[in-house]
Amino acid sequence: MHGEGFGIVMKISILTIAPEEFDGFLSSHVVKRAVDVGALHIEIVDVRDFADGSFRHVDEKPYGGGGGMILRCEPVLRCLEAVRKGDGALSVALTPRGEVFTQNVAKELAGVEHLILVCGHFEGMDERIYHHMDREISIGDYIMTGGELPAQVIVNAVIRLLPGVLRAGRAEEESFENGLLEYPQYTKPAEYNGEKVPDVLLSGDHEAVRRWREEAARELTRDRRPGLLRKR
Amino acid sequence: MHGEGFGIVMKISILTIAPEEFDGFLSSHVVKRAVDVGALHIEIVDVRDFADGSFRHVDEKPYGGGGGMILRCEPVLRCLEAVRKGDGALSVALTPRGEVFTQNVAKELAGVEHLILVCGHFEGMDERIYHHMDREISIGDYIMTGGELPAQVIVNAVIRLLPGVLRAGRAEEESFENGLLEYPQYTKPAEYNGEKVPDVLLSGDHEAVRRWREEAARELTRDRRPGLLRKR
Repeated sequence: MHGEGFGIVMKISILTIAPEEFDGFLSSHVVKRAVDVGALHIEIVDVRDFADGSFRHVDEKPYGGGGGMILRCEPVLRCLEAVRKGDGALSVALTPRGEVFTQNVAKELAGVEHLILVCGHFEGMDERIYHHMDREISIGDYIMTGGELPAQVIVNAVIRLLPGVLRAGRAEEESFENGLLEYPQYTKPAEYNGEKVPDVLLSGDHEAVRRWREEAARELTRDRRPGLLRKR
Repeated sequence: MHGEGFGIVMKISILTIAPEEFDGFLSSHVVKRAVDVGALHIEIVDVRDFADGSFRHVDEKPYGGGGGMILRCEPVLRCLEAVRKGDGALSVALTPRGEVFTQNVAKELAGVEHLILVCGHFEGMDERIYHHMDREISIGDYIMTGGELPAQVIVNAVIRLLPGVLRAGRAEEESFENGLLEYPQYTKPAEYNGEKVPDVLLSGDHEAVRRWREEAARELTRDRRPGLLRKR
């Protein structure tokens, strides 16, 4: 588990058949920042390197017929074996049938020493791969072509919570952290094309600002996501 | 709206302050495929190009105090103005306070002529920007550093539904399309490290396979996501 201090590095390994899809992600601001402050070590591992034969084929038609190509056990499980070292690893498959990812799950994962994310084909992964996973996670009730973007979403949500990555206190002010959506924000200019910033925000009265924001956050949540209020 | 045939191109414009984060995405298999079959025209538009002054600054401290930097109205709305042409455009802000993205929303968006996705800072966007949006969408109840990954998730989920992008019929077989999670899949070998493929899938009895899959999908859904069954 991570302490509050710096110097404890979270390791993330991402197992994928499409490593090139992580190019932009690895150079994104938050990933570079997490690596630079020493909070994160991240590696993208190509599952094809663990497939036999000169074609290194990683997928096959499903038993029982049907469309789509199914990710084979062998390269994925060999790759997992090679990557997993020590006791601190948690292996997670990204799949639409997994538990639904939330801010609370992000917080849990931020405490893991070594997070191994396995990106499936969404066309299907051999069921036996799941037997070797500690968890299965879905980022929402929709279908993508693979687990590559879900893995990036999870890494982004998790590493911004690591100590030293965001400005102190910022991670706690966002939506969901207190069970409410975030209050409306405004910045310069005070008037733009006839639309004005609410007077209270320009008043300098900190207590009035605090009350306005709390009420606005509550109203927005009640209006749009009443279910969140009930969960509080 | 799109017809069933080819030749009708969906246009997607993504407005962002971090265009470099889309590098891997633009070269991903499904985006290249959608462009190659003529189903998609996609552009990444840099909001900074619409900011004034030599510093081209796009964010500012919030009125009323608090951490974080807020995306300014001016560059975003100017950029939106420049990108939106004609009547077929739908502007969507990616934000944790938006309606929750689902497979049904993906299907709706796949019928839009010109989809404009605005990636906010998750630290905050001037509220007045939202007044110019047709919709606000959230990909789930968790916080990321910005709207760039959510935009990629939505584009991936939407363009795989466009005619000609996936093999015919494939898009209908996935999880959620029929209100159930997908049945377990298996491929070669029939036995791996002692774990066997269910006999029925090797039987060649198509009707038995169909029944097994239907029951397995129902059981998995009942076990993990009973709420989906109730929605059917």
